[in-house]
Amino acid sequence: MAELHNDRFLRALQGQAVDRTPVWMMRQAGRYLPEYRASRARAGSFLDLCKNPELACEVTLQPLARYELDAAILFSDILTIPDAMGLGLYFEEGEGPRFRHPVRTEADILALPQLRAEVDLDYVMQAVTTIRSALAGRVPLIGFSGSPWTLACYMVQGGSSRDFRQIKTLLYRSPELMHALLERLAVAVTDYLNAQIRAGAQAVQIFDTWGGVLAEGAYQAFSLAYMQRIVAGLLREHEGRRVPVILFTKGGGGWLEALSASGADAIGLDWTVHLGDARRRVAGRCALQGNMDPAVLYAEPATIRAEVARLLEQYGAGPGHVFNLGHGIEQHVDPDAPKVFIDAVHELSAGYHG
Amino acid sequence: MAELHNDRFLRALQGQAVDRTPVWMMRQAGRYLPEYRASRARAGSFLDLCKNPELACEVTLQPLARYELDAAILFSDILTIPDAMGLGLYFEEGEGPRFRHPVRTEADILALPQLRAEVDLDYVMQAVTTIRSALAGRVPLIGFSGSPWTLACYMVQGGSSRDFRQIKTLLYRSPELMHALLERLAVAVTDYLNAQIRAGAQAVQIFDTWGGVLAEGAYQAFSLAYMQRIVAGLLREHEGRRVPVILFTKGGGGWLEALSASGADAIGLDWTVHLGDARRRVAGRCALQGNMDPAVLYAEPATIRAEVARLLEQYGAGPGHVFNLGHGIEQHVDPDAPKVFIDAVHELSAGYHG
Repeated sequence: MAELHNDRFLRALQGQAVDRTPVWMMRQAGRYLPEYRASRARAGSFLDLCKNPELACEVTLQPLARYELDAAILFSDILTIPDAMGLGLYFEEGEGPRFRHPVRTEADILALPQLRAEVDLDYVMQAVTTIRSALAGRVPLIGFSGSPWTLACYMVQGGSSRDFRQIKTLLYRSPELMHALLERLAVAVTDYLNAQIRAGAQAVQIFDTWGGVLAEGAYQAFSLAYMQRIVAGLLREHEGRRVPVILFTKGGGGWLEALSASGADAIGLDWTVHLGDARRRVAGRCALQGNMDPAVLYAEPATIRAEVARLLEQYGAGPGHVFNLGHGIEQHVDPDAPKVFIDAVHELSAGYHG
Repeated sequence: MAELHNDRFLRALQGQAVDRTPVWMMRQAGRYLPEYRASRARAGSFLDLCKNPELACEVTLQPLARYELDAAILFSDILTIPDAMGLGLYFEEGEGPRFRHPVRTEADILALPQLRAEVDLDYVMQAVTTIRSALAGRVPLIGFSGSPWTLACYMVQGGSSRDFRQIKTLLYRSPELMHALLERLAVAVTDYLNAQIRAGAQAVQIFDTWGGVLAEGAYQAFSLAYMQRIVAGLLREHEGRRVPVILFTKGGGGWLEALSASGADAIGLDWTVHLGDARRRVAGRCALQGNMDPAVLYAEPATIRAEVARLLEQYGAGPGHVFNLGHGIEQHVDPDAPKVFIDAVHELSAGYHG
């Protein structure tokens, strides 16, 4: 493998000194880029794009051609695991992901096959290898998965939801069944992320998109506990380097103390959290990633720069911060705005380091 | 006016001793009740029901006939103000509220009429008077409004939203216009709530349903500041009694310290917050209301009772707690479940008082 030329991102995740605050954007390869829309049109559907390693590599690299990003992230979907389990993932325009065969009963849960990611999600591993090779050491490659709770939400609801009625009914009426499902998913996610690491992912992030809909107490038992189990089962060193793991619970700002004791290297923050408060609360136990409101990218350049400056000041001097948005970049953003954002992070953060 | 027979709710909001923890449910007059669905069918549309004082009174009282609730809440909609401003509120089945004439430009904002609630929202005041008289002192009546930020979200987006793109673009590109809109709304809400108080509302709640989508910093400037201005302008005494005000920001658990310094008597909590932590954080500056996950009402009676017991224990001994759900009761709840919930609050809370 090629030598890594820019290791700011990996260093910051381990709390090591850097010259600039590293920055990347969740969903950085996406619909706001005209070149992404062109690749997707060539692929056919979104899933066809995910399942074609050459095209997945192409779109992964597109934002790096435009912006001075400090990391690349595998282009894929968070629902590849349940898809490989045979639930029949599909996408309806404007409706988000759907499953043809949602999981509702004990029999459904017991019938879920145990995956071998290297075989059953071979196309993901091929994409990781292809991207890693194409990056040629320019920046590190991030692998990822949905959290067990988040996968379970989609699998039980059969798609997105506003009230999460089916899964919460399962949780409150049949907690032992809920745990049985989450245990299977934790095993599958651990295996999946380890396969990505062996294929070349240099850091991994667990997206707990729906952890924030859980009640205090239920979050710890039904989401965090399973992410913690995954963290404990991950390969933490590969190719002679630490492979950092990032946990991102959207709406999880109230649980930072518990998240920072999970064994993860870094915690992702959404935009409702004060970065300085968050830094005090995690008290050096892990690094932080975040947390600009993605909607700031709709603002004028001067406002974008001012928001970057404000967040850098909140975090303060020293390492342990990876700049990011508080959630994925939105499709209506002008592709010129991320350049203003990313350049501002590098330029304005210099004074906080070294 | 009839003497008030049950003042637990008003006493708890002021941190005064009570014999049992008072309890009510947000959206307690609603679609989960067959008698509500019958009244609504007679009224025609949801808005027809809101605008008919006799029917609004009828549905307000329905949950009190089934459950030992410690408060009634005016049956109305949070969007009555923009409707009275001429935006053309309507409801599409399964889509939530919509406006025929969303507010998008400076001209739209400047053209918004200044309301006189007693005249322009006369039907609401008639409903308050009718309900208050029908209650005959059984329990206090709560009036309410949406917060300026929450009203603005619907007015600018034209309805519900997932990404709040239009209003956040307005906020980040034209903050002075955003403030102009919020100022007008704060004046209107203050006038509206004072009219409800004069008509007979004995406490008022401001629903900041969408405050939680704002970034740290933006929340304080664009939502909390305007709720604080309203609190400062409210009649705080009427009929020789304190009229308590409750602020409820869904997703506002990170901002409890600021909320508790707003001058409000109580802060509503969603289910992501630990009640004991919240009590420590507000440090006696105000009372707390909440915060059971509404989905617990899908559980078996034993689980509902266990959740009530857990939350009572989290809050601990002494006054200053009004039990509630962390959000509105959902339409698919079995009408037997709230009885289990409400009876459990009264029965299990006795040991924490007196």
